[in-house]
Amino acid sequence: MTLDLHGAGPRTSGTAGTETEGETVAPVPTAPPGDPATDRAVDVTALLERGRTLTTPELRAAVDRLAPPMDTVAAYHFGWIDAHGNPADGDGGKAVRPALAVLSAQVGGAAPELGVPGAVAVELVHNFSLLHDDLMDGDEQRRHRDTVWKVHGPAQAILVGDALFALANEVLLELGTVEAGRAARRLTVATRALIDGQAQDISFEHRERVTVEECLEMEGNKTGALLACAVSIGAVLGGADDTTADHLARYGYHLGLAFQAVDDLLGIWGDPGSTGKQTWSDLRQRKKSLPVVAALAAGGPASEKLAELLAADAKSSDFDSFSEEEFATRAALIEEAGGRTWTSEEARRQHTTAIRALDPVDMPDEVRAQLVALADFVVVRQR
Amino acid sequence: MTLDLHGAGPRTSGTAGTETEGETVAPVPTAPPGDPATDRAVDVTALLERGRTLTTPELRAAVDRLAPPMDTVAAYHFGWIDAHGNPADGDGGKAVRPALAVLSAQVGGAAPELGVPGAVAVELVHNFSLLHDDLMDGDEQRRHRDTVWKVHGPAQAILVGDALFALANEVLLELGTVEAGRAARRLTVATRALIDGQAQDISFEHRERVTVEECLEMEGNKTGALLACAVSIGAVLGGADDTTADHLARYGYHLGLAFQAVDDLLGIWGDPGSTGKQTWSDLRQRKKSLPVVAALAAGGPASEKLAELLAADAKSSDFDSFSEEEFATRAALIEEAGGRTWTSEEARRQHTTAIRALDPVDMPDEVRAQLVALADFVVVRQR
Repeated sequence: MTLDLHGAGPRTSGTAGTETEGETVAPVPTAPPGDPATDRAVDVTALLERGRTLTTPELRAAVDRLAPPMDTVAAYHFGWIDAHGNPADGDGGKAVRPALAVLSAQVGGAAPELGVPGAVAVELVHNFSLLHDDLMDGDEQRRHRDTVWKVHGPAQAILVGDALFALANEVLLELGTVEAGRAARRLTVATRALIDGQAQDISFEHRERVTVEECLEMEGNKTGALLACAVSIGAVLGGADDTTADHLARYGYHLGLAFQAVDDLLGIWGDPGSTGKQTWSDLRQRKKSLPVVAALAAGGPASEKLAELLAADAKSSDFDSFSEEEFATRAALIEEAGGRTWTSEEARRQHTTAIRALDPVDMPDEVRAQLVALADFVVVRQR
Repeated sequence: MTLDLHGAGPRTSGTAGTETEGETVAPVPTAPPGDPATDRAVDVTALLERGRTLTTPELRAAVDRLAPPMDTVAAYHFGWIDAHGNPADGDGGKAVRPALAVLSAQVGGAAPELGVPGAVAVELVHNFSLLHDDLMDGDEQRRHRDTVWKVHGPAQAILVGDALFALANEVLLELGTVEAGRAARRLTVATRALIDGQAQDISFEHRERVTVEECLEMEGNKTGALLACAVSIGAVLGGADDTTADHLARYGYHLGLAFQAVDDLLGIWGDPGSTGKQTWSDLRQRKKSLPVVAALAAGGPASEKLAELLAADAKSSDFDSFSEEEFATRAALIEEAGGRTWTSEEARRQHTTAIRALDPVDMPDEVRAQLVALADFVVVRQR
């Protein structure tokens, strides 16, 4: 199979940004002083918190509509109760999507609350896909807890996933407005992309080589499409036209790819204390993530040695008892072949493309600054 | 557990309609001569064929949008290709839903073609539920062929089911009209009911007793809700108001219950040559279908003997090697306890309720006659 980097291959020279301690990718350049779009200090924590605060009660109310035992199974999945049904204060995740959906309503000057049904619908679709993907992939842990199929069985994972997907459409369509129909259509397109991405992910498992382009397409489907929907759905509900929504979606799509590039870096080199995952997590799962794919595509001695090792690993019956050192060797080869640097640069490229996508959109300076700050947050996060 | 027939219990007297040879329930009474609604001869075969002819090309075009390998897996499920990918002329089923969706567009005077996206969306949702239910239930055969999870694995069954569900919304919402949004909302409500019904069905498996009312509720969710949607979605797409759509939905819901009562009779006493199922099919699957539940609720010696046998069967390790005679004994007890007669009468009651639900709706006589003829067809069918 021919390697294919489509002109965007890893550079092994020293031009990559120096990686500051504790930051996954090179820091996002500070905006020039006086730039009205970004010179205000944005409190990203407060922005995420606002999204969470506005969305969670509506999300819980939607999930409460499910008939037993699906309501309980869903509540367990969201981390609101433990496996015994006792209230829990689960890790709800970073809540970037709700923050974006609520913020996007403000792009055209609407109240953030108008974006809430969109935020709820996007969260429902995201969690539908987690429930089904965990089952398909056989993943036993999610957010530091046993996955739903592990606790409640495969049938409940399928059924509750289906119910969350249906509920997402219900929450939007019961608004009964033309805007809600447009929002639901965007959500459906994003959901189909999610499903396409999962299909690609599954097919990649059975293949020896995956091109960087294929990997980016898969990640765009699995992560970019729903972020694109999140950041346009609030605007649509607030009455924005399709052109505006499409520009916002483009920002979201590239933000998703930046997010995923960082995720792929954390999946190999992340600090288990921060990520909550095992060391070398993605390598243990033989994931063909961006750093791996880029390293394999780079050519040169480290790339070839890596290819040899991974090919042998695929057939090895000892893989499950590999030592830390064996994974460290693979990680070092990926880095030596340029996979780490390339992925780090790719995160920055996608970050830049995302922010530039906002240029044609007329919006309040404050909202633009917040969208930029969320993009910055996504590429410097550590979990 | 208290038995509960809610006043609609089996009668063991001889008042039940005599069952004519080859007909599952007593024949539907002929309309009085001169009744404008029903005195025209309706060619039901032609009506079903019209629905199929209008819908199938659009359904295939929708499924063709799926990315590989999901398009192939879906085509296998629909019977368009065999397990090796060769074209097949599969059993597409009776196609009652497409016929209803297309016909319902005509209720308000619109062209039948206006109902087609509704018919396609309903068929997509129906098949999404089949794909997931077969996997959850561990069913290995559907329409005389191996089920998708058996041929292509559980992950593909989940994924393609999800994709068909998303596609259903896409097909409606891309119409971009207010009516399409209303149609999509009805479809979503029906889908949630389908999911509720499957959840109930799963929970009944673990219970010793199920009341007749619970069984009817489950069957209303699993069969009634989607037929209700089918027969109202075309009308909505054609511009009918919600009151009209609700009356039509009521017809569809009760038609679904009539359909299911007949299905439950065929599941025990159906001719394997017609149904394509094994003899005593539902008894082999220990299904708590209407005749069984009604017989258990009836009381009396046959009912008690049946309860005893079924309780022992639930614990028996020999169940899988039961002879024809053992199932025949159970079927005879169900009949003796009145379960067969009650279910047959229930089919007629639901049939009557369905047709009466059309009374308040103003529609062309020809359309009314066709809806009545389809209802008649559903209760006298043999497969």
